[in-house]
Amino acid sequence: MELKYRSAKSEDLESLVTLLSKDPLGSQREDSTIPLNSAYIAAFEAIERDPNNELLVVELGSSLVGMLQITFIPYLTHKGSWRCLIEGVRIHSDYRGQGFGEKMFEHAISLAKNKGCTIVQLTSDKQRPDAIRFYEKLGFKATHEGFKLTL
Amino acid sequence: MELKYRSAKSEDLESLVTLLSKDPLGSQREDSTIPLNSAYIAAFEAIERDPNNELLVVELGSSLVGMLQITFIPYLTHKGSWRCLIEGVRIHSDYRGQGFGEKMFEHAISLAKNKGCTIVQLTSDKQRPDAIRFYEKLGFKATHEGFKLTL
Repeated sequence: MELKYRSAKSEDLESLVTLLSKDPLGSQREDSTIPLNSAYIAAFEAIERDPNNELLVVELGSSLVGMLQITFIPYLTHKGSWRCLIEGVRIHSDYRGQGFGEKMFEHAISLAKNKGCTIVQLTSDKQRPDAIRFYEKLGFKATHEGFKLTL
Repeated sequence: MELKYRSAKSEDLESLVTLLSKDPLGSQREDSTIPLNSAYIAAFEAIERDPNNELLVVELGSSLVGMLQITFIPYLTHKGSWRCLIEGVRIHSDYRGQGFGEKMFEHAISLAKNKGCTIVQLTSDKQRPDAIRFYEKLGFKATHEGFKLTL
C-alpha cells in the first residue's frame, strides 16, 4: 500500500486530537474528551482559513499514520525569503520504525520547495532525544536555541 | 522622548534592510545595495498582505531604534491555541544597552496577549550569546533545540 498525503478535514479532528493526546508530552497538556473541546474546533477552522497554514495528514489505506503542521512565512531576512515552519509532528505508535516519518518529511519538504522556501525550520523539545536524532538524520542542524515563553 | 511602535511601511524598507545588513550574521547573507533587491520588496508585500504577520518598527523621534517580525499561528496542540513566533529581532547599534530591546519585547508580548496567544516562541542562533542571555533575562526558557534545514 502507498502512503497518501492530504490536508486534514474536519472529520479527522477527533483522530488527530487523540493522536496528539497519546504522546508522552501531549498526554499532560491535551484534552482527549469527546465531544471535543471547542478550542480544537476553533483552532482547526483558523488553520483551514489561513492559506499559509497546512495541516497535513498521512494515511495508509484508511488508517491515520501521521500528521504535521506547516506554516509558510515571508521574511525580510535572508534577502527576502519564504520559510517553512513545521510543528506538531506525530507518527501513530502502530506505524513507527517503518520509515514513514522520513517519507512524511520528504513530502513536507517538497511542499516547501514548491512554495519557494529556502529554509525549513522546527523546534524539538530537548526531552525528546529520539526526535532530535530523527531530525539530525534528515539533515537538520541544531544551530539555534528554541526559546518559549508561556503567557 | 517616548518610544513609538508601529507597523513597517514601504518607506521604511531601505532602513530595515540596512539594519539587517549591519548585523554580524546579517552582513554575510543580506544584500544592502540600493535600489533594493526586488526580493525584499516582494517579501515586504507578502508580510503586509498577511493578517497573521506583523513587521514591527520602534522609533525614538524620527530615528529607527529596532525591528522584529511577529507571526501569529493557530495550532491544534496545547488544546487548540494561538502561538506568537518572533523573528528578525534587531536593535540599531546606536541604541543598544538602554533597555529598548526589553521595551520592544514588552510591546510584542502585549500584542501576543491581545491576540489570545498562550506561548511566545523564537529561536536564537547559538553564535549569539548576548541574544541568548537577553531572552533568558526576559523569562524565555531554552527548552527546545532549534533545527534548520537549508533547501
